[in-house]
Amino acid sequence: MSITNPSLTNLSKAKVFDGWHKQYQHQSEVLNCGMRFAIYLPPEATPENPAPVLYWLSGLTCTDENFMQKAAAFQKAAELGIAIVAPDTSPRGEDVPDDPEGAYDFGLGAGFYLNATQAPWKKHYQMYSYIVDELPKLVEDHFPVSGQKAISGHSMGGHGALTIGIKNPEKYTSISAFSPICHPIIVPWGRKAFRHYLGEDSAQWAEYDAVELLKSRPANLPMLVDQGDADTFLRGQLLPETLEEAAKEAGAELTLRMHSGYDHSYFFIQSFITEHLEFHARYLKEK
Amino acid sequence: MSITNPSLTNLSKAKVFDGWHKQYQHQSEVLNCGMRFAIYLPPEATPENPAPVLYWLSGLTCTDENFMQKAAAFQKAAELGIAIVAPDTSPRGEDVPDDPEGAYDFGLGAGFYLNATQAPWKKHYQMYSYIVDELPKLVEDHFPVSGQKAISGHSMGGHGALTIGIKNPEKYTSISAFSPICHPIIVPWGRKAFRHYLGEDSAQWAEYDAVELLKSRPANLPMLVDQGDADTFLRGQLLPETLEEAAKEAGAELTLRMHSGYDHSYFFIQSFITEHLEFHARYLKEK
Repeated sequence: MSITNPSLTNLSKAKVFDGWHKQYQHQSEVLNCGMRFAIYLPPEATPENPAPVLYWLSGLTCTDENFMQKAAAFQKAAELGIAIVAPDTSPRGEDVPDDPEGAYDFGLGAGFYLNATQAPWKKHYQMYSYIVDELPKLVEDHFPVSGQKAISGHSMGGHGALTIGIKNPEKYTSISAFSPICHPIIVPWGRKAFRHYLGEDSAQWAEYDAVELLKSRPANLPMLVDQGDADTFLRGQLLPETLEEAAKEAGAELTLRMHSGYDHSYFFIQSFITEHLEFHARYLKEK
Repeated sequence: MSITNPSLTNLSKAKVFDGWHKQYQHQSEVLNCGMRFAIYLPPEATPENPAPVLYWLSGLTCTDENFMQKAAAFQKAAELGIAIVAPDTSPRGEDVPDDPEGAYDFGLGAGFYLNATQAPWKKHYQMYSYIVDELPKLVEDHFPVSGQKAISGHSMGGHGALTIGIKNPEKYTSISAFSPICHPIIVPWGRKAFRHYLGEDSAQWAEYDAVELLKSRPANLPMLVDQGDADTFLRGQLLPETLEEAAKEAGAELTLRMHSGYDHSYFFIQSFITEHLEFHARYLKEK
């Protein structure tokens, strides 16, 4: 747990609810670039008493900072003894190609938690492997955390949490999401990103679509999804009803809650994040 | 309570903890410029059941957004039925003069909650009158709030909360602060700002210095101050021991709490904001 990896550099630390919020820089092998992530360590986390980890995947345009600054999650995380890791949302750096027009929904800040197969994206855009393999190994090697993991996220990150959790039920105890992109292969955000990252053959896209994955995978992780009905992206990009339908057909354990008047912002997330932490705590403690 | 003032324009609204966070733009008469502020209205606030208001004054470089996004105050505010108003930290706009070198500690984002007497600052930099008179009148005219007010703030805003509260005990029930600039007339941040805004005659400065004010004013409001001991500004700019000493000599009701390991950030504020809301709720309910 001592920080011996020369590529892991502490950038900041701040005490919060008796635990610690810290940011780190490291060189990612799978992404071929320097990456930043943040971790919240609850007060009781020690090498003798390692904490389980909730991985939080953020939405379009975000970095490691949005959730950590705006979600108001630390009081409950400290109380429950859960660590939180917030990665960035894409590879970063001058060498990393971006949307030619600098659009917010593709390229930098919009990695969609998949492994790109197309040039010029595939050299860096390998966020699926980064989240599933490289980052947990780094975190477990350097911090007082256990191997127990849950996964959650918002919007594009909700899509990431659902698809990564559904594909890796042996790695995570539970999945949750706020306002996730549930069925990316049929909505504009997903179709644009998948066409570039994965190519024109849309048969390849189903591997990163929660609705499609539920059709073919045994559905064995509990899922909690919260969605506001005043979210301007609800009908055009998110489509929670498609996830509900797919979960029902698959016999998956999905709780979808619609919330009257709430929008797509972190104000929505902070209103319900403690319930997500309590949801994950139930399963993290069972294991 | 209907919004009839043509100069009060709603810029955003988001539901949070069953209440509403809203941002407004209006033309300020005392500041001679357009100003933005934010309000959190707890769910139970109605014209028949108006909520008391906590005015929150932010620190150097902040706008109305920092506290509202990062302080994690709304769950407790909703529970206690307290509205929160967060003004900007200075006049704004192209006509408003700024520090010639664009420094963060003077000019835009650094109004120090005083009424400037010196050109070219005095035309716009009248934040004391804005906070004490104009803004509460606007808020009470347009929102379901009562005339009951408490005041709090951080750093430069902690200085503002202390000085404004001490000078206006009939307007507020209670004062609190995080990491306040306690004795601005003897520290670099305060001396730079006061010299420009108030002129070289430092005898005029005591009107905006909490330590000096406590020497001459009857101290009749309860004060709660939280300070982290890992705050890099503690010894050079904040000096809570001077406030403690002045309060003791004045017989003022000050609780100063030092917190081991905490810094100057919103991570510190979010760790203790619920205790500040509970502190103010006690006095707001007594009145």
